[in-house]
Amino acid sequence: MAEMAKRIIMTRFPQGMPDHEDLKLEDCPVPAPGDGELLLRTIYLSLDPYMRGRMTPAKSYAAGVEPGDVIVGGTVAEVIESRNDKFNAGDIVLSGNGWQTHAVSDGTGLVKLDAGAAPLPWYLGVLGMPGYTAYIGLLSHGRPKEGETIVVSAASGAVGQVVGQIGKIKGCRVVGIAGAQDKCDYVTGELGFDACVNYKDADFTEQLKVACPDGIDVYFENVGGDVLKAVLPLLNDFARVPVCGMIAHYNDTAPPDGPDRLPQLWRMILTKRISVRGFIVFDDTSKQPDFVRDMAGWLKSGEVKYKIDVVDGIENAVEAFQGLLIGKNRGKLVVKVGEEPG
Amino acid sequence: MAEMAKRIIMTRFPQGMPDHEDLKLEDCPVPAPGDGELLLRTIYLSLDPYMRGRMTPAKSYAAGVEPGDVIVGGTVAEVIESRNDKFNAGDIVLSGNGWQTHAVSDGTGLVKLDAGAAPLPWYLGVLGMPGYTAYIGLLSHGRPKEGETIVVSAASGAVGQVVGQIGKIKGCRVVGIAGAQDKCDYVTGELGFDACVNYKDADFTEQLKVACPDGIDVYFENVGGDVLKAVLPLLNDFARVPVCGMIAHYNDTAPPDGPDRLPQLWRMILTKRISVRGFIVFDDTSKQPDFVRDMAGWLKSGEVKYKIDVVDGIENAVEAFQGLLIGKNRGKLVVKVGEEPG
Repeated sequence: MAEMAKRIIMTRFPQGMPDHEDLKLEDCPVPAPGDGELLLRTIYLSLDPYMRGRMTPAKSYAAGVEPGDVIVGGTVAEVIESRNDKFNAGDIVLSGNGWQTHAVSDGTGLVKLDAGAAPLPWYLGVLGMPGYTAYIGLLSHGRPKEGETIVVSAASGAVGQVVGQIGKIKGCRVVGIAGAQDKCDYVTGELGFDACVNYKDADFTEQLKVACPDGIDVYFENVGGDVLKAVLPLLNDFARVPVCGMIAHYNDTAPPDGPDRLPQLWRMILTKRISVRGFIVFDDTSKQPDFVRDMAGWLKSGEVKYKIDVVDGIENAVEAFQGLLIGKNRGKLVVKVGEEPG
Repeated sequence: MAEMAKRIIMTRFPQGMPDHEDLKLEDCPVPAPGDGELLLRTIYLSLDPYMRGRMTPAKSYAAGVEPGDVIVGGTVAEVIESRNDKFNAGDIVLSGNGWQTHAVSDGTGLVKLDAGAAPLPWYLGVLGMPGYTAYIGLLSHGRPKEGETIVVSAASGAVGQVVGQIGKIKGCRVVGIAGAQDKCDYVTGELGFDACVNYKDADFTEQLKVACPDGIDVYFENVGGDVLKAVLPLLNDFARVPVCGMIAHYNDTAPPDGPDRLPQLWRMILTKRISVRGFIVFDDTSKQPDFVRDMAGWLKSGEVKYKIDVVDGIENAVEAFQGLLIGKNRGKLVVKVGEEPG
């Protein structure tokens, strides 16, 4: 009997939190590569909040996932059969296989990895898209100056933990916001953040104020919602707000009740001369070489550490993704879809 | 009998639209300059929407007006008595006398004007603070590129008319938004805007869409409110929104009813990678020499024209100011407080 592949299809646009009816695991034949193509076996699949944004008919910055499609996603994979001169069986590559065990590629966009140089999941995290997101978001858009206060939400997440550590390297006071005590303990104890506040605490707003005695100069936004509500009054004149994500709202089905806070926000942007800027990592790849050089150096020196949360088996991807959207993960979330080679 | 002066005092913080009880005209003695000081006679007083923002106990970018204070404001004035070596009686100066016929100054911040070079009110408009606001707001924050679409609200106002004309000079499609047909006719007929839409028309949102077939790349924000609501869905990816004012909300006494549109705005900022930036003219004076050079050239060549709305007599200032806040003025609003010399 031929080996079977597994994949997860979006059967329909989810309403609110995606469930197993929306995202369905199915068996399928292993695809066969044609001339010039190669067959990839997924080892690690990255799970990221942005994926929820793709599962909607609303216009976004990237093509959405349509009903019937395999869900998109970054992967580390092994070439197991090559009919392409540029790749050999056994090569480990960064690819975009999505939520499936096998994929065929013509080689476009694949990046060969040095499997011995770093733990493989790091290429989906600190050395990959989340790391570069943190790097350009903080440095190009946040533009922190020594001595300023940076607040980062989703502080222990794939992007947040890197933002905070770069902030410390740049000489700033760094305050994290997370949704669990152990996450806060991790970023202050292990990563060197100056403080971290649990947004689920009843007195969160007060705690945040205490943690930011000089106000907030840079707010790296990953979440929106109540966290944003607490941050806004603390923003200093000329504060910068890189908007990287808004995980609190990805499952919204309708605008929240009033009052309408948009006019107040607008007034604050004006009177405090605040700069708010949305960005995504693919908009500016020009700093990629700087990023690779800097980050490799910081990882080597130990100035940057990185925590990975590995979930075993593609059959657990949907539940892991649901957990990600409510903050259950501890560090960058990846699914181990297949074994690492020998 | 000694000559008397007149001044307008803010007796208390206005609730909503300021009235004659809030802003009270009173007689007072003409003040006497001490050693090193000079006595100024106000000729023109500038009326600007930002003044409403000062009449509140809420924190803003500048010191507020306190109950009992003369209201702040830029003025063109004549030195009528000088005990200061640097000034002579008869000098015409740009000053900040506020809403009063006479003021004493020690000379700090006064700028001598060449009275013959331009109509005196221009120094409170196209050659002054509103002109420089338009210049840095559009060029430094809006960063328009040739062929892009600029939308400017309060299009025929002190700032808006300059924004649009600079936009045309830079090769952009310029669409104004104003609240009266004659204002729209003025900016398209006299100032060369490509289109102008009346936000009081029932089908305003549809008209704006038609006027911006390629979407909006720069939205120069002077008003907020319903105009902003119509603009937001038309913003293109990477749109820039310099926030200069929000006249629709200066008299708000409470946040408007819901739904809360802030999360939607936040999502749009993210997915379209929009940049929103509040600014005020005093933050960056470094471009002032460029501004004076460019604007003098454009006025001379006729590429920039400027409309002034002169109201006669300080006793009419409060009513003129109320009119300004609801859009009654036609062009930059100034009060003629005293006669021009000679």
